[in-house]
Amino acid sequence: MREIETLAGERVLAARVPAAEGRRVRVMGWVQRVRDLGAVVFVVLRDRSGTVQAVAADETARAAVRALHPESVVAVEGLAAREPRAPMGVEVRVEAVQVLNPAETGLPFELHQPEVRAGLDVLLDHRALALRHPRLAGIFRVRAALVEGFREALLEEDFVEVHTPKLVGSATEGGAELFSLDYFGRPAYLAQSPQLYKEMLVGAGFERVFEVGPVYRAESHDTARHLNEYTSLDLEVGFIEAAEDVMRLQERVLARMFARVRSRCPDVLEAWGASLPDLGDGSGRPVPRLTLAEAAERLEAITGHRPADGLDPEAERRLGRWAREALGSELLFITHWPARLRPFYAMPDPADPALTQTFDLLYRGLEVTTGGQRLHDHRRLVENLAARGLDPAAFAAYLEPFRFGMPPHGGLAIGLERLTARLLGLGNVREASLFPRDRNRLFP
Amino acid sequence: MREIETLAGERVLAARVPAAEGRRVRVMGWVQRVRDLGAVVFVVLRDRSGTVQAVAADETARAAVRALHPESVVAVEGLAAREPRAPMGVEVRVEAVQVLNPAETGLPFELHQPEVRAGLDVLLDHRALALRHPRLAGIFRVRAALVEGFREALLEEDFVEVHTPKLVGSATEGGAELFSLDYFGRPAYLAQSPQLYKEMLVGAGFERVFEVGPVYRAESHDTARHLNEYTSLDLEVGFIEAAEDVMRLQERVLARMFARVRSRCPDVLEAWGASLPDLGDGSGRPVPRLTLAEAAERLEAITGHRPADGLDPEAERRLGRWAREALGSELLFITHWPARLRPFYAMPDPADPALTQTFDLLYRGLEVTTGGQRLHDHRRLVENLAARGLDPAAFAAYLEPFRFGMPPHGGLAIGLERLTARLLGLGNVREASLFPRDRNRLFP
Repeated sequence: MREIETLAGERVLAARVPAAEGRRVRVMGWVQRVRDLGAVVFVVLRDRSGTVQAVAADETARAAVRALHPESVVAVEGLAAREPRAPMGVEVRVEAVQVLNPAETGLPFELHQPEVRAGLDVLLDHRALALRHPRLAGIFRVRAALVEGFREALLEEDFVEVHTPKLVGSATEGGAELFSLDYFGRPAYLAQSPQLYKEMLVGAGFERVFEVGPVYRAESHDTARHLNEYTSLDLEVGFIEAAEDVMRLQERVLARMFARVRSRCPDVLEAWGASLPDLGDGSGRPVPRLTLAEAAERLEAITGHRPADGLDPEAERRLGRWAREALGSELLFITHWPARLRPFYAMPDPADPALTQTFDLLYRGLEVTTGGQRLHDHRRLVENLAARGLDPAAFAAYLEPFRFGMPPHGGLAIGLERLTARLLGLGNVREASLFPRDRNRLFP
Repeated sequence: MREIETLAGERVLAARVPAAEGRRVRVMGWVQRVRDLGAVVFVVLRDRSGTVQAVAADETARAAVRALHPESVVAVEGLAAREPRAPMGVEVRVEAVQVLNPAETGLPFELHQPEVRAGLDVLLDHRALALRHPRLAGIFRVRAALVEGFREALLEEDFVEVHTPKLVGSATEGGAELFSLDYFGRPAYLAQSPQLYKEMLVGAGFERVFEVGPVYRAESHDTARHLNEYTSLDLEVGFIEAAEDVMRLQERVLARMFARVRSRCPDVLEAWGASLPDLGDGSGRPVPRLTLAEAAERLEAITGHRPADGLDPEAERRLGRWAREALGSELLFITHWPARLRPFYAMPDPADPALTQTFDLLYRGLEVTTGGQRLHDHRRLVENLAARGLDPAAFAAYLEPFRFGMPPHGGLAIGLERLTARLLGLGNVREASLFPRDRNRLFP
């Protein structure tokens, strides 16, 4: 057998073997399964594109294939031949086999079943092996497609991608639930969000910025919807009139994100039995809007009692169900949150200053986005900080562009793991993180 | 005057005013400069696209423009009219002015000169204001274009974008120079690189992954080439034959990155007097290769003495100069580094096991990339770990995919700030970071 291919070489991916019918091909990947029928021995090979069946008929080839361990990495050469009984209608008739890296025996779970039969903790403990299952790997192809759509939509609208520091010197936005560390003898913190930086960058003249990056919450609760490190899709945009502009932008961006998933990952959607909201091109306000007060009325009508401040997880679920049944929508904006439930930089509602121009977006009954218009008036920001017991001096660098010309602006942050999990119907947000971090999990 | 535009509204960007000649336009941005000639008053407005001149002739308009503070955020309406003396050949004849957010007086530096006259520390202390200068903002448009080209090239080659945790539970890759923190009562560290995770993901069947994200080095030295938090462009690819495959991939990817800068940011290149290496489409090995031993010989020929182990900054600079003068190349691969200077996962050179299949890429005499082929043999990895006094048990999750079939693989990491700085000829890597973190700087 020849040496293995170079990057530019002649390896044929499993999914492209049918197109190579009649040619000698070399496939490379992991041994998914060996089936010995005596006269012939089958091996199913898995690579990043899918699986392909190879069959060994002559004695030497049969012996070579019979000896393969599941999950060994191998190269197989042979003729791509029509075979109606093969899963793809074409199989590889084995002429040569080379083991590139042999696998031990004793996998923690089987990988050739339609689903991996193991609990979430086992799957996360053996993450690199679990992800070899196409159904689990597919989650991260969907996740990547969402990020791609997010970027694509924003680059088209003239946004600049930025990277802001995750090591910060002050406990911004309130101060609770921060991871702290020693930074050359001084205290530093892991950023809870790029919020203040992205506002500064709007004020720095970029006007439109976005960031895809990690954020940190030292929250000690351990639920199916929380992670201590997660990926936030953040954007901020200047020269807006109202929170409504940000909501419309969210609709356009989400439409593109779903479109990317639809075009890139139809197989994953099918494997998970998932369907996507149809937002068209995102124009025409396809997502229903409800004020928080209206939402509370709805909930009272459904449950018979007035909900507490804001929305707890159960209230979000009920509203999600109501939106689907009554409005035919899996997405729902909840607007006009009271100022006391929102950060100091939230823009008050012009009609009622106790309320803010902010919104949450619920997707299938889970908050996936928070956003709104922000204050751009320096004096009011300083007042708000002081009223919340925060020291404006600690926010001097943040406040500086507000002193020297800050446009009206707003933005939003999407929790990528939550969005991915809702989209595929995953029960736990951890399933949408490659290596999740929670109170108990810091490995692998 | 009407209310300010919505996102979908009718604002005209400064750069597009000439195309709107003869129409009534509304421009919005920052007041860059007001010049009062008595009979007319000029105002130069700056937005994310550039600057535009507006002129007030009638009494009310003159009074309104005269009252504008530099850096106030304003909307100006009027006719876009031909005026040969205007910088763009078209100016806005002011009919209405609205101050959206007034600026205080007392900017820390002038923003209307060709360059901002202030030291780096002042520029970084007042980052959001300094970035209003198009020359400084341009650095980050180049940086974003580099990232865009990196992603675009890799998505086309079937890579998956991933996000790996920056909070890690063990001191990987050696353990020195790590930031540590308390994670719910346990020690955790900030990741120095996504190296082990991206290898795990190659072994998880993705085969080809990339990540754009922050990395952390608790190095206490304070130089023009080091940051304690920086952005790493990381990739890892399976089923390669040799480090050469990774170097060729680097050439293709770099070619695309430079092409993106060329097409997106010609104005920034001009402002900085920067030119780009011409790599064509990256094929045909456009970047010269030199082994470290050959590089040492060159240096000895230049300086008269044999250099110490590896390459110090001065040696890199000399090699960079030599490559430009002797080879006509601003890029230079240095290959075949000794194993003792490389991490435990470096693949030995088949011809000399004291050397490794690794490379650095120098760009104008500065290392911007490190990469190579990695070991995929489990036994040799365990031996290497033990030989370096590292506990293989601490690497169990990393090693697991190697026990169960890991393809031959390799990858690289590009320091985004270094690459950007070299490209534009910036003297200090901090200039290519929006909010740099160094030993002394944790704000803003």
